[in-house]
Amino acid sequence: LPRLLLLVKPNDIPAYLSELKTAGLADLEIVTTPDPSVEIILGDPALFRAHLRHLPALRWVQATWAGIESLLDPALRHDYILTNARGVFGPLMSEYVFSYLLLYERRILERLEAQKHNQWAPALTGTLRGKTIGLLGVGSIGAHVAGTAKHFGMKVRGYTRASQGCPDIDRYYHGEALLEFATGLDVLVNVLPNTPATHSIVNADVLNSLADQAIFINAGRGSAVDEAALLSALRNKQLAAAVLDVFREEPLPHAHPFWNTENLFITSHTAAPSFAQDLARLFIENYRLFIAKQALKFQVNFEQGY
Amino acid sequence: LPRLLLLVKPNDIPAYLSELKTAGLADLEIVTTPDPSVEIILGDPALFRAHLRHLPALRWVQATWAGIESLLDPALRHDYILTNARGVFGPLMSEYVFSYLLLYERRILERLEAQKHNQWAPALTGTLRGKTIGLLGVGSIGAHVAGTAKHFGMKVRGYTRASQGCPDIDRYYHGEALLEFATGLDVLVNVLPNTPATHSIVNADVLNSLADQAIFINAGRGSAVDEAALLSALRNKQLAAAVLDVFREEPLPHAHPFWNTENLFITSHTAAPSFAQDLARLFIENYRLFIAKQALKFQVNFEQGY
Repeated sequence: LPRLLLLVKPNDIPAYLSELKTAGLADLEIVTTPDPSVEIILGDPALFRAHLRHLPALRWVQATWAGIESLLDPALRHDYILTNARGVFGPLMSEYVFSYLLLYERRILERLEAQKHNQWAPALTGTLRGKTIGLLGVGSIGAHVAGTAKHFGMKVRGYTRASQGCPDIDRYYHGEALLEFATGLDVLVNVLPNTPATHSIVNADVLNSLADQAIFINAGRGSAVDEAALLSALRNKQLAAAVLDVFREEPLPHAHPFWNTENLFITSHTAAPSFAQDLARLFIENYRLFIAKQALKFQVNFEQGY
Repeated sequence: LPRLLLLVKPNDIPAYLSELKTAGLADLEIVTTPDPSVEIILGDPALFRAHLRHLPALRWVQATWAGIESLLDPALRHDYILTNARGVFGPLMSEYVFSYLLLYERRILERLEAQKHNQWAPALTGTLRGKTIGLLGVGSIGAHVAGTAKHFGMKVRGYTRASQGCPDIDRYYHGEALLEFATGLDVLVNVLPNTPATHSIVNADVLNSLADQAIFINAGRGSAVDEAALLSALRNKQLAAAVLDVFREEPLPHAHPFWNTENLFITSHTAAPSFAQDLARLFIENYRLFIAKQALKFQVNFEQGY
């Protein structure tokens, strides 16, 4: 009987167990504390990372996160199959991105301020329709955000290394065409993973290429942003707003200037949460492949880093 | 040469003139002050209402608003063709409705409050997926909102007098089935016009039928709401929030209790603005039908009131 180690936040354990039980995986034994006979892990990288070297029977790890950088460390073992969470975050990321874009277009905060003074505030609203959004990264998450942008009548550009399979992208850009991609964008959204090629990709040149009063949203990784350039673009009122979910150091240090920069919104790495139901279902699908000795979905290549 | 009286807010006149000029309506003379030879009006009902009886040659009025109740007054003439604005507000109404639904699900205001204290706030976000929205009224506006709800993975109910042609409505309800329609809704959105049948349709029974912590959005007409029942549902914390765009009296009187009711958001009749570009295009389309002596689009039946 394969033994599964479930290592998620204590609050989430009942929801996972309930989903796994409902699926009737009778040939699986589930434990919530490490022991040497564990062959499979389903869990948060932060919680199982330290246990990896004490699990001699380990064969497969299903991470509940998309971001698995912490497992790429060369000091860690890489002799197991690592699958990460994909395909479940697109709809959540769309809700995240469009919640802030619509907050801005509909002037919600200004109207709330007026309401405090019993003030009728009929100032004209903006609209997403006809605006141009650019996506840094068009994997399953970026593709979903592109679909939502199309639903709202936006023009959509995508910047990728090579891929160009998403029908909701009006135009693709690659490699050297980064500034061409950025030029005139009303909205720039980063959903790239953390790789050496994406470090500080959102730099002063990129920010200077956007349309005046553009909005920048970072839901990829904190390392993608040149922080000084971003602060300067916000302080100059060149950018209308920045919405940041991820940071070079998390939690964002208490003294960081981001906290009190005007028009900068901090969302504390909540953009696309790993809901137990979604992740348990993804695990169950992969587990059925695992016992059938088939290739698992969403395998990570330790060398490429994604 | 037919003479058109353009009566819109002064700020909007240049945008209208530019659209009309681009369309090359060479056989049309445009004036911006009333004179007896005017045959056509394109304008805001509030601005042209008083002029109606001084225009003997009047044949057709294209209103730039959807709401034309003020023109139904039996004391006014009804011997002209009235067309109102339709088909242009759906996308704007979707932006409006989902801006506030996402504001709530993503806990944007709580996160902003935490940010003021340099506080990392990773509390789990909610999601629209799987929630149930009910639309009071499924004309072109309701149908568009239904499509956006489907895009976000919601279940969608529609309440109409008889119509049931929108593919994004999972289930239709009519007439007596109002409470059945309302039962268990996570979100109730009113987009009904103001007719005798819709007065106070959102009453205590309807509000009590919603799911606990539901959200109510009124973007139809203020007369649809029983104000005392709504205040009570908000004060009891039975409703999570109400978002009100329209009121029995507008602007909402300074002393009205709505202004300072917790979790009540006032948006000052800005939900679906009449953008000059949209309305000018609608007029141009109808004008081409008018000179071809064809039936115009979106004619109002003065007796039915819509």
